[in-house]
Amino acid sequence: MNIDGCHFRTIWIKEDNPEVIQVIDQSRLPRKFKILDLSSVRDFETAIRDMYIRGAGLIGATAGYGMYIAALKTEEKNFQEKIIESGEILKKTRPTAKNLEWAVERQLKAMAAVNGIEEKREAALQTAREIADEDAEFCRKIGEHGLSLITDIAEKKKGDAVNILTHCNAGWLAFVDYGSATAPMYAAFDKGIDIHVWVDETRPRNQGAGLTAWELGKHGVPHDLIVDNAGGHLMQHGMVDIVIVGADRVAASGDAANKIGTYLKALAAKDNGIPFYVALPSSTFDWEIDDGVKEIPIEERDPGEVTFMTGASGKETVNVRICPDTTPARNFAFDVTPARLITGLITERGICKADKKSIEELYPEYR
Amino acid sequence: MNIDGCHFRTIWIKEDNPEVIQVIDQSRLPRKFKILDLSSVRDFETAIRDMYIRGAGLIGATAGYGMYIAALKTEEKNFQEKIIESGEILKKTRPTAKNLEWAVERQLKAMAAVNGIEEKREAALQTAREIADEDAEFCRKIGEHGLSLITDIAEKKKGDAVNILTHCNAGWLAFVDYGSATAPMYAAFDKGIDIHVWVDETRPRNQGAGLTAWELGKHGVPHDLIVDNAGGHLMQHGMVDIVIVGADRVAASGDAANKIGTYLKALAAKDNGIPFYVALPSSTFDWEIDDGVKEIPIEERDPGEVTFMTGASGKETVNVRICPDTTPARNFAFDVTPARLITGLITERGICKADKKSIEELYPEYR
Repeated sequence: MNIDGCHFRTIWIKEDNPEVIQVIDQSRLPRKFKILDLSSVRDFETAIRDMYIRGAGLIGATAGYGMYIAALKTEEKNFQEKIIESGEILKKTRPTAKNLEWAVERQLKAMAAVNGIEEKREAALQTAREIADEDAEFCRKIGEHGLSLITDIAEKKKGDAVNILTHCNAGWLAFVDYGSATAPMYAAFDKGIDIHVWVDETRPRNQGAGLTAWELGKHGVPHDLIVDNAGGHLMQHGMVDIVIVGADRVAASGDAANKIGTYLKALAAKDNGIPFYVALPSSTFDWEIDDGVKEIPIEERDPGEVTFMTGASGKETVNVRICPDTTPARNFAFDVTPARLITGLITERGICKADKKSIEELYPEYR
Repeated sequence: MNIDGCHFRTIWIKEDNPEVIQVIDQSRLPRKFKILDLSSVRDFETAIRDMYIRGAGLIGATAGYGMYIAALKTEEKNFQEKIIESGEILKKTRPTAKNLEWAVERQLKAMAAVNGIEEKREAALQTAREIADEDAEFCRKIGEHGLSLITDIAEKKKGDAVNILTHCNAGWLAFVDYGSATAPMYAAFDKGIDIHVWVDETRPRNQGAGLTAWELGKHGVPHDLIVDNAGGHLMQHGMVDIVIVGADRVAASGDAANKIGTYLKALAAKDNGIPFYVALPSSTFDWEIDDGVKEIPIEERDPGEVTFMTGASGKETVNVRICPDTTPARNFAFDVTPARLITGLITERGICKADKKSIEELYPEYR
């Protein structure tokens, strides 16, 4: 999407040097916009592990490009052995990220399929590009399908802005381009439809305040930041027309794990008769799980994310404690929204109901 | 309640000097515990207006003591005229606080009822004490009635801790003692019942993280701070036995206005079959209003409370910006929880259902 009018992806090959991959350093956003050069396996290891880049789609694409750089830097002698070692290093950076393993394995397979070091490097470059392009293309299609929902509301509202609420960052920063939940918003905005986005702050890590507000602002999409507590009140008073969120994992039944607090917004949407959609590329489906609330494991993270808050004080980045020194805290990272609260799923293949039958109709190969 | 083992109220007459009123300076909590001396009408004006003290009950009690100090400092000549002026000054400090006007009027009436300056001053002292004592006594009774709910759960759980979730600060810091929502928790804890409180951070002003966590910690009540997003997940997984919150205004129908985000917790409690109680002294009822969602006006506050966060960095208090410089924000202070989501109201007269008939049975004089 655009940053102050210039088109960007989150990852790309450096223009004048194909041996360098560039990414947006998301660890400093929204306080600083910086582009990072990655030119060794160690650079990629650090970038993924220390969360200079994050988001399922982007992690996969970064691993893909990481394997391409590994191939470039690996000499012919014992190539196969060494490239597998590089893959292992990358896979260990975020052990629970499914896309990471998937991208590394796809690269190893692509390289194993051809002979000769130049051919292997060429295959790795092509595969890295394919992974990134596919990610962007899937998100673009999610945008195209989701656009119809926004268009329908816009027609009913006859010129009044369509108010969309979103939680966390399922934006283009989490993917290669477009994002999942944001893709329909960008598609609508770029078509000239009058939209306005309510951006949930998304405590504790504030991905809404820090990333979603940043990317919507940079692309020019009208929005307002709100605290996570505000959504229910807005929905009670007709100030939200549709909720669109992303997902970290969606069960075969349609139950959707997403950033903590998503479930509360789904309840409020249901209580006020407001459509609640989950946008996801099909890689987010977990075909093995039926009961999302019972079966999807919920990560408990460092309580320091709750007791402290990071922000800008002048030009400094400061971490402030928001409670007494001795206050204990618990930090559950995700919650699961039961399918019964979800109006529909927006995927790259189209929109379906959040139930096993409808999902399988769209993805019959997983039946 | 206790602070590190010593009993405190939020407001009291200085031990060795009855011409000075002391209050806990809540503007610096939880970072600094400081006691403020108030010995002139101007001191009281500042303390209320600049929120060194806050909370409906405490605002009323402070206004009561403020009028007593006014009487002490006002000379005999034109006493009546000057004391009314002092009352006007105090009433203007927080124009929407009902208890403020009520306490000032009660003082004026008490003083008008007696002759002679010494008698008037004595009446003002006695009335100030009555206002404070009544507030504490109402909260103590709320605690007594609410205790039965916790005892019942404790019996069913046979020794496992009773998990209580609360939102914002309806604690003793908001009243003279005990608090409204916290009163049943202190009563249970002081009786040796094993309880554990989930403290919602309560963005944007963080009264949960800053005040509720502080007062529970100082009294020794086991608790954990959580982000406002977490409650739904906890309820889905059986980690909450009861929700008790306070209220800013409760309609005659039982609809309850409270800090923004309360409605979302009530929805989650309903969805998971968890009892959801609102604790309030009867002064919080608005007998004129029936439909709380439609009729209770919701204050919209400074967006800076959303875009900035205050906390401690070492010994410094720092205000950090958590979003891009250009991000706009909206800041709705309260929401209204419809009576249909409320299991019951805990008042100083007992517990009743959140409906017009049940409330009127407890308060027939307002029928």
